[in-house]
Amino acid sequence: MIEEITSTQNAKVKKWQHLTTKKGHQKYHQYLVEGWHIVGDAITAEQPVVQIIATAEQLNLHQHQFPENVETFEITDEIAKKLSDTVTPQGIFAVLDILAAEHVDPETATGAWLLLDRIQDPGNIGTMVRTADAAGFRGVVFGNGTSSQYTPKVVRAMQGSQFHIQITHGNLEEWVSALEARKIPVYGSALNAEAKDYSTVTPQSEFGLILGNEGQGMSEKLMTQTTTNLYIPIKGQAESLNVAVAAGILMFKLNQNLA
Amino acid sequence: MIEEITSTQNAKVKKWQHLTTKKGHQKYHQYLVEGWHIVGDAITAEQPVVQIIATAEQLNLHQHQFPENVETFEITDEIAKKLSDTVTPQGIFAVLDILAAEHVDPETATGAWLLLDRIQDPGNIGTMVRTADAAGFRGVVFGNGTSSQYTPKVVRAMQGSQFHIQITHGNLEEWVSALEARKIPVYGSALNAEAKDYSTVTPQSEFGLILGNEGQGMSEKLMTQTTTNLYIPIKGQAESLNVAVAAGILMFKLNQNLA
Repeated sequence: MIEEITSTQNAKVKKWQHLTTKKGHQKYHQYLVEGWHIVGDAITAEQPVVQIIATAEQLNLHQHQFPENVETFEITDEIAKKLSDTVTPQGIFAVLDILAAEHVDPETATGAWLLLDRIQDPGNIGTMVRTADAAGFRGVVFGNGTSSQYTPKVVRAMQGSQFHIQITHGNLEEWVSALEARKIPVYGSALNAEAKDYSTVTPQSEFGLILGNEGQGMSEKLMTQTTTNLYIPIKGQAESLNVAVAAGILMFKLNQNLA
Repeated sequence: MIEEITSTQNAKVKKWQHLTTKKGHQKYHQYLVEGWHIVGDAITAEQPVVQIIATAEQLNLHQHQFPENVETFEITDEIAKKLSDTVTPQGIFAVLDILAAEHVDPETATGAWLLLDRIQDPGNIGTMVRTADAAGFRGVVFGNGTSSQYTPKVVRAMQGSQFHIQITHGNLEEWVSALEARKIPVYGSALNAEAKDYSTVTPQSEFGLILGNEGQGMSEKLMTQTTTNLYIPIKGQAESLNVAVAAGILMFKLNQNLA
């Protein structure tokens, strides 16, 4: 049974729109994802998909891959436009439950971890999660002051990588202390040449890597706590790199001994 | 003499807004840039700054650094909001002339060049220009089908790097042929493991590097024309990297012998 919805004023449409905002996430403990790439990934990864919302065209294409008994809605192109964060919506969405944030204990965490210190831009955050996945990292720690992981721009930039690696929230100072107590190095990232040239580091199979705020960089407190701070030598006249690009360069240098 | 403008309906305000669109660029051969970082960079680089538009606060801060005789306007916060592409505008803008695209001849071009094949996302394009600058590249070639370099999101992401390195437009097939005829290698970027692992390449001081469209990658024609195609091994479950991140990883691997 597929319920057909044709009015943009329908109460369900309004709720789905609400699920693209932080207030909606807090109220319903659910969020909206968009596009078959992510909806399909969520199904494959056995995520808590509560509802699937699609145009007739998208239903034709993908309905045979939906989980059994998932509540399904057929919507018009006009409604798809209302729900979409993009100019040319694909026409397929899903509502997912927000699970209680996975607790990861830094005293037992293994592998490589990316730690985000007050990163603000949703595109940067999402891209960094996607890159951490591609680089073979075990997970990403959203430090206090890093934006939400459920807003549409973050979700789109993650491209489903949130279903592949661990995402957790935590106090970065505690993470650094706990990792270093276990002799696992934590690398900071810095713009000054007093830090160590990243290309000279010998990569290991377990470490932490911290990237900091777009304007201000890492907090000074964290900077003094790290094992080593790395910098990427700039050859031209640019003052700095975009933080997601810097993260990519560092992760793909440090990942040589990851599985 | 500073002209004060207080109405958002003023004809000048409407023209400035027009200078953030492709139509406006075509009509006036001018574009609008935003923020002191870029305005100041444009002045330092002796770019054709035609007008500077700022709130009283920004005039206090920066007016002593303006070029002599530049036409200057004081605007309200409300007008700044209208002109801005950001949620919290800084309150300073400049109108720059669009110069005839610098013609760079691939038969004599030296150094390293980034070639963009139908890149669509403005943030990606701008970030790649900024990264090319930071990596010590000589310039960036916007191939046919790559978005404009004058839209606000591209300009913001470039962070002034368009004033540091050469930006040109060109036919990429002609660029590849001309470079290869001079025994300068041109690297493509590919997602398949038949291509060569990028980390095994011995960098040179002159080369071309092509990055392709976000969804489709490089054109097949270009792919067969390149000297070598490179891939970045993916260790996790992500299908691919964001194109600007991939470009950053490749540029900072290949730039070791650049000045």
